[in-house]
Amino acid sequence: MSESEELHKGLEGVPVAESALSYIDGSVGKLVYRGYAIEDLAEGASYEEVLHLLWNGHLPDRDELDAFTDAITAEAAVDDTVIDALAGLAEADGRPMAALRSGVSMLSASDPSDAGPRDLDVAREKGRRITAKIPTLLAAYDRLRRGEAPIEPRDDLSLAADFLYMLTGEEPDAAAAEAMDQALVLHADHGLNASTFTAMVVASTFADTYSAVTAGVGALSGPLHGGANQDVMELFFDIEEAGADPVDYVTTKQAEEDDWRVPGYGHRVYEVKDPRAKILEKRSKELSEASGDTTYYDYAKAIERFFTEEKGLDERGIAPNVDFFSGSVYHQLGIPVDMYTPIFAMSRAGGWIGHVLEYQEDNRLIRPRGRYVGPENRSFTPLDER
Amino acid sequence: MSESEELHKGLEGVPVAESALSYIDGSVGKLVYRGYAIEDLAEGASYEEVLHLLWNGHLPDRDELDAFTDAITAEAAVDDTVIDALAGLAEADGRPMAALRSGVSMLSASDPSDAGPRDLDVAREKGRRITAKIPTLLAAYDRLRRGEAPIEPRDDLSLAADFLYMLTGEEPDAAAAEAMDQALVLHADHGLNASTFTAMVVASTFADTYSAVTAGVGALSGPLHGGANQDVMELFFDIEEAGADPVDYVTTKQAEEDDWRVPGYGHRVYEVKDPRAKILEKRSKELSEASGDTTYYDYAKAIERFFTEEKGLDERGIAPNVDFFSGSVYHQLGIPVDMYTPIFAMSRAGGWIGHVLEYQEDNRLIRPRGRYVGPENRSFTPLDER
Repeated sequence: MSESEELHKGLEGVPVAESALSYIDGSVGKLVYRGYAIEDLAEGASYEEVLHLLWNGHLPDRDELDAFTDAITAEAAVDDTVIDALAGLAEADGRPMAALRSGVSMLSASDPSDAGPRDLDVAREKGRRITAKIPTLLAAYDRLRRGEAPIEPRDDLSLAADFLYMLTGEEPDAAAAEAMDQALVLHADHGLNASTFTAMVVASTFADTYSAVTAGVGALSGPLHGGANQDVMELFFDIEEAGADPVDYVTTKQAEEDDWRVPGYGHRVYEVKDPRAKILEKRSKELSEASGDTTYYDYAKAIERFFTEEKGLDERGIAPNVDFFSGSVYHQLGIPVDMYTPIFAMSRAGGWIGHVLEYQEDNRLIRPRGRYVGPENRSFTPLDER
Repeated sequence: MSESEELHKGLEGVPVAESALSYIDGSVGKLVYRGYAIEDLAEGASYEEVLHLLWNGHLPDRDELDAFTDAITAEAAVDDTVIDALAGLAEADGRPMAALRSGVSMLSASDPSDAGPRDLDVAREKGRRITAKIPTLLAAYDRLRRGEAPIEPRDDLSLAADFLYMLTGEEPDAAAAEAMDQALVLHADHGLNASTFTAMVVASTFADTYSAVTAGVGALSGPLHGGANQDVMELFFDIEEAGADPVDYVTTKQAEEDDWRVPGYGHRVYEVKDPRAKILEKRSKELSEASGDTTYYDYAKAIERFFTEEKGLDERGIAPNVDFFSGSVYHQLGIPVDMYTPIFAMSRAGGWIGHVLEYQEDNRLIRPRGRYVGPENRSFTPLDER
């Protein structure tokens, strides 16, 4: 093997698979799922319709959607074994992403399928089960750590509405259910980001869908990937607590801390404003105005206005990404801050599963190479002579 | 972004990181860990010494090894929350790789560290805790599914001996402990294989070590990666049950089933016999002869002799890999067949953690690109008009 090839650290820009799931043109802020503009899907399609699109290639008609939705809601309940484990985890530790990672992993034990790992129909069924159960897992965990009993899923609600219902115990109003559904649509897929690629590497060994999604949750739990929506909201809380002007607060922090960056700002693949941010901004505005409290929306807009108009940073490709406005939407829905990244996972699981199914269809084990830079030909000395 | 770059599906031969951990020259069957030949380490170093080498760059002297070993054994106990969950999993399902994936994930809840994710000393401590607890997890799970109570780890045994002790309830003799230790040394690292690369992709988001190792277990559970040692042993059982000649059995199966391949044979990176196979072959021979039953060793040698001498397949780069003789070693140690891949994981966790620590030292988020091959500019039709 030659050692002369270029090192592709981070694999930035390196195509590792063909995919028909999503396309991003970062230079103009364009995102499509299977050819449909994200704006159209966010406006007109439910998360269930988008899942059907991602997994099956086309938007469902009414009959297809009903069958698809029924198949999902039929799988939403989670076994007591897993709920008991979540209770133990909630007592030991409050981190919902770690609990979600463990919960998804544990789900495999009760999967009824015993077919071989290379059966793609089985992989798809497992994916459907996981997607159905993640809202139940997350809501149960959040209730358990608050000392409340988990609530059983309902079969007459959408995934988005059922999640809010199981979390709060109250059926959400139409505006809340719509906002939640739209957030799920917007986060469902985004090319071969780190968590999606993780799921693909795992699946390339023909490990099962549980292994792939568990690994994806782990990757998304990292602060360089999934944590920024929470960071944005925590920044806004800090600004409020300090009674500060948001622009003053942010510029002071930038001046004082060398490596501090505005969370939810900038993205490796977008040179302009993330199209998802535009949609969530509108939703944040609507919900905030309806609630009568626009504090966090105003903070976000003030900061964006400053960077865009006064500093002109948008020309250098630094603009709000999907995380900049999602937090204020979730906050309006009454969701705890540390559930924002788990909600991202709840939605993105649809993309992970779509990419796993697509990759396994024409599978090739993913095994790159390291360039060895260690010592050569060291002679061994036994312990007693060291 | 240009769409013209070469597609690197499977990333075969693509260098994605510099690494000083292990080097493989597949053309001559050479494997080194940090400059030391695998043959020297297998002969003269314990698994603990190899872990120290992989994680810290040098083989320890006696004082360093004692401190290192003490730090590991101090972390071997596993919380009741996790043991209880394993009991639930054992009741629902007998697959130890799925249980190990869940068990490692659950361990994070009781990790005492609350430092930030980018603290590499914390990542290293977490790695040490995981490495210490995996043998305990696996032995407990195997006992629980047999209806027996888990056995507490001992602090006076090596990781290898303690695993056998916790599995069987009896302290292993020197030959068994040595064989187990050698198997752990041989499987500890092997370049950027799929599970190691999985752990690196996860860690590149600065997700914690639990997320990285959990994901690695998931990847190793796939039949294209970790399952061949079990497949080899099951082949031997089938041959025995059929009362067949091993060469007849294998050649008949090849003739009858188009896509059937001899498990434990061939490897993407070796063109000659895997150096680890040579060492395990010797160990298998010794243990088999000592036990008075050389059946499976004889099967393996008969099959290898046929392909090498009569068919000349070794010239085409198809030769026994690490999995071809490891099963017969584990069988001599009384280990259940479906624990072979979990033992691989127990050992390889050392390599996963080593690569995670090395990569995070000079981290870059791993995010490749997909080449979009889906439809373009589809116009959206609302559900009721489809």
